[in-house]
Amino acid sequence: MITPHPGDTASPAGARHEDDATRTPAPRRDAEATKAAILRAARHLLARHAHADITLKAVAERAGVSAPLILKYFGNKDALFARVMSFESDAEALLDAPLPDLGRHMVRHLLEGQTLRGADPVLRIVFAPLHGEQGDILRANFRTQVSERLAGRLTGPDAGLRAELAVATLLGLGVMYGIARGTHLRAAEIEDIVDRYAPAVQNHLTP
Amino acid sequence: MITPHPGDTASPAGARHEDDATRTPAPRRDAEATKAAILRAARHLLARHAHADITLKAVAERAGVSAPLILKYFGNKDALFARVMSFESDAEALLDAPLPDLGRHMVRHLLEGQTLRGADPVLRIVFAPLHGEQGDILRANFRTQVSERLAGRLTGPDAGLRAELAVATLLGLGVMYGIARGTHLRAAEIEDIVDRYAPAVQNHLTP
Repeated sequence: MITPHPGDTASPAGARHEDDATRTPAPRRDAEATKAAILRAARHLLARHAHADITLKAVAERAGVSAPLILKYFGNKDALFARVMSFESDAEALLDAPLPDLGRHMVRHLLEGQTLRGADPVLRIVFAPLHGEQGDILRANFRTQVSERLAGRLTGPDAGLRAELAVATLLGLGVMYGIARGTHLRAAEIEDIVDRYAPAVQNHLTP
Repeated sequence: MITPHPGDTASPAGARHEDDATRTPAPRRDAEATKAAILRAARHLLARHAHADITLKAVAERAGVSAPLILKYFGNKDALFARVMSFESDAEALLDAPLPDLGRHMVRHLLEGQTLRGADPVLRIVFAPLHGEQGDILRANFRTQVSERLAGRLTGPDAGLRAELAVATLLGLGVMYGIARGTHLRAAEIEDIVDRYAPAVQNHLTP
């Protein structure tokens, strides 16, 4: 996860798997939870430190697992961060709705991600400036995997610009909720925010 | 400035003032340009490094001035960063329009800031996670100086929430333009973006 959040400082979900690498494999469900905890830890650190300064050990400590377990699941540090810097699976979930309802789905998905799953599908793009050349990879991934993927769903003129404006609107909500931590926003019901905010997103998608 | 930008890598505007501290004072106009260059340099570094890791020397080098000149203008490092972490003067310019036209003014002001002045009035809030406790100061300033100041201008129910949603919308544009660097967005005319994007901002201000 990217921003401080109730789940952010809770006991690491994967702590009990520390010895997995040398034991009988945990059930698949727990392995997935551990992988998710590792990815959350890596995202958390990428919001605070330059890519080059982040060690596998730091990720392991934050996730409550051993460094060898990270290697088992992700191969090496580069592969782990390539995974964190990809928006592929996030974009699939973010855009998984019929076009007429996509604006509401995107806004709800982002808010549920931040509040329930402790993760935002797109917000990590804002930390690109920290990461030098890796930041350019993040930008390129964001463009092809999020903006252009969305643009491909749209009809009518200026689909590319309209997709970027829809994504911009969504990103702003992620920043205001997860980083600026707007007090009114965080006190509001998710469906109330969806009602107020989604029409602007939808208006770029289907003007 | 916060994000890479044509002006970001150009020759520092204040470079010729390096010896100001020991010479006849430069004309006021040049002093203001030098101060602005120092603030831009400090903002640039705050988007990339934790507050504690940034030295006055690094700011001076990036601004093309001497460290003593920074001390002359801003007093000390804490005072310089307090200035950078304040949104007071930015909010004044950002909100300087009658309410019925405020949405268009805010969007245009942000885009002109990024394209013409190499500075965004609010985008630096996204780097709060880098700065630990200083990040909390940034959040508190953002709340009182931007969101609540705007909320005070609004009439009708839920002014606080509506102000946060308007600012969220604006922040997203800043992220998409200045950090994600959306290619379609950066190729569009400012007034075209204003026409497309400002109605959503205005709709939160005067629903």
